[in-house]
Amino acid sequence: MELYSDEYFMNEALKQAQIAFEEGEIPVGAVIVSKNRIIAKAYNQTERLNDVTAHAEMIAITSAANSLGGKYLNDCRLYVTLEPCTMCGGALFWSQIGEVFFAAADPKRGFRQSNPNILHPKTKIHEGILAAQAEELIHRFFEKLRK
Amino acid sequence: MELYSDEYFMNEALKQAQIAFEEGEIPVGAVIVSKNRIIAKAYNQTERLNDVTAHAEMIAITSAANSLGGKYLNDCRLYVTLEPCTMCGGALFWSQIGEVFFAAADPKRGFRQSNPNILHPKTKIHEGILAAQAEELIHRFFEKLRK
Repeated sequence: MELYSDEYFMNEALKQAQIAFEEGEIPVGAVIVSKNRIIAKAYNQTERLNDVTAHAEMIAITSAANSLGGKYLNDCRLYVTLEPCTMCGGALFWSQIGEVFFAAADPKRGFRQSNPNILHPKTKIHEGILAAQAEELIHRFFEKLRK
Repeated sequence: MELYSDEYFMNEALKQAQIAFEEGEIPVGAVIVSKNRIIAKAYNQTERLNDVTAHAEMIAITSAANSLGGKYLNDCRLYVTLEPCTMCGGALFWSQIGEVFFAAADPKRGFRQSNPNILHPKTKIHEGILAAQAEELIHRFFEKLRK
């Protein structure tokens, strides 16, 4: 079995963010990986679903639990293009997810602004993979909005 | 139009918690009120839906936005039988909900343990209505679990 890199999976999350961008949503995408396989893909759908809870990570957590048939994600890794917010950080805590990789930091609404210890103490956090690409997409989105 | 009291609405939230209890879920219930009318009722369904995000408040927020046709809940009041967790606190922040009433405090997993300022600065918070009843239900649930 080919072992995919963290960059590969983050690029898959970026593809999800690109779909959000094209649909007029704040472009954030996520994938959840179990045993080197993507078990959930999602992008932000707060506008389409008219629902503040429909962040990419929330949809991905629900979908991954569904795929696994169990609600805990200890053996899973989340790749998300933007630092999770407090809500998503709280959901990740409950999921006991094994690892979280995020691309761009969110100095305004990222969970670390509320409390850097929101995630489960066993969850490993990694920051910065493909951050430039994720930031560029978000920047482009808000530039387009302003026009 | 008869004006219902906060106790009336919290009692409706307790009825939702009772349904959760009967279904073997941690007994937490919530209602969301707009213009003196209940527009969403929900109870914790994390076991049934196999989903850590399926807290009463999350389901109620999604349902209320659906009912209103808009994702912001500025003119709404949430009544919930237990202090919201960090995830739900984060969701309530995004919803910009007008007021939050919770019955029992949750000194272990309540949002105030992460950061007491997680909710939106405009959201008014009220604590303690029917707290004894809400606590008794949760206490009874965990006693039953231990048996």
